Amino acid sequence: MVNYPNGKKHTTKDLVTKQQKHSKIEYGKRGMSFEEAIDKTNHYYITHHIAVIHKKPTPVQIVKVDYPMRSKAVIKEAYFKTPSTTDYNGIYRGRHIDFEAKETHNKTSFPLQNIHLHQIEHMERVAKQGGICFLLVHFSRLEEVYLLPFERLSVYWRRMTEGGRKSIALTEIKNDGILIPYEYQPRLDYLAALNLKDESEE
Amino acid sequence: MVNYPNGKKHTTKDLVTKQQKHSKIEYGKRGMSFEEAIDKTNHYYITHHIAVIHKKPTPVQIVKVDYPMRSKAVIKEAYFKTPSTTDYNGIYRGRHIDFEAKETHNKTSFPLQNIHLHQIEHMERVAKQGGICFLLVHFSRLEEVYLLPFERLSVYWRRMTEGGRKSIALTEIKNDGILIPYEYQPRLDYLAALNLKDESEE
Repeated sequence: MVNYPNGKKHTTKDLVTKQQKHSKIEYGKRGMSFEEAIDKTNHYYITHHIAVIHKKPTPVQIVKVDYPMRSKAVIKEAYFKTPSTTDYNGIYRGRHIDFEAKETHNKTSFPLQNIHLHQIEHMERVAKQGGICFLLVHFSRLEEVYLLPFERLSVYWRRMTEGGRKSIALTEIKNDGILIPYEYQPRLDYLAALNLKDESEE
Repeated sequence: MVNYPNGKKHTTKDLVTKQQKHSKIEYGKRGMSFEEAIDKTNHYYITHHIAVIHKKPTPVQIVKVDYPMRSKAVIKEAYFKTPSTTDYNGIYRGRHIDFEAKETHNKTSFPLQNIHLHQIEHMERVAKQGGICFLLVHFSRLEEVYLLPFERLSVYWRRMTEGGRKSIALTEIKNDGILIPYEYQPRLDYLAALNLKDESEE
């Protein structure tokens, strides 16, 4: 039994456990969500003139807006819309970059239900135009992030649509993807992972 | 004096005038806003495998969300955020495309206050990475749309920051930009305008 004096609800140890449950990546105790880690990385890329990659805003259907006197407009009724594209895109050394970031609590596979069909279709179109498309997968309990190129993702997606398994095994992701190590700056250097891939293919 | 029987507030002629006031482009009476014309064009590009270009969702700061039983989440309080990038981006024949679309009711110039500094800075970064950046300007009363390459836009922006005029003269836009004719399909073939520009430079 643990007492919580002074209104404190958690000990430090509890907090860390809680954070892990909520998929925080622990970079030497610098707790941060997967999305925050990507945002920090993109910010690093921009400020260091490496690439210009942004997260798209969450698509929202706005129904009602109030314009109170002397203050800014307030959206009073709106609904979340299903995104028709991936969440991130931009440019890196002249190449168009387009990717989706997903996380799973699973320890042995990534469930494909995390991705929408129209996101696959979108990446397919972008890849055909010559863009670099991929998936970043965060296995939150393993504290591992992988970059899976779209060409491989689409193989597993097709396997599912043809009646095969509805997930990608971690072993498959380890084989086909690139592990992105946690670093201090940038947090998740996924573009370095892309370079690595290019070199190994040459 | 005009009477409005049956609760009708406008005659057909009035409506057309109203639409023009609200910047509708009249494509042989197919009334459509500038933004709708761009959306239709982008849809045409995607379905014809020409390019993959999307408008980014309006950035919104979500403050309060309700989850009513048996219905979808309702956003009850949210605020518009200033966009940190341009509104449109995507890929065309391997090239990253990034642009902003603006309209003006002015007949002789485009006021630069329509563009934010961070949008200029964003396009500068993207151009340095090898992206194709430009501004689409709709002169609503003239019913003319021009594509102005970022390299020229940045010249006029600099002129303003150095104490010069706060707008771009229509004559300057006619000189430096490319007129995009209204067509049936696609409505505003701005990528064709880009091709034209490339050819004239070769």
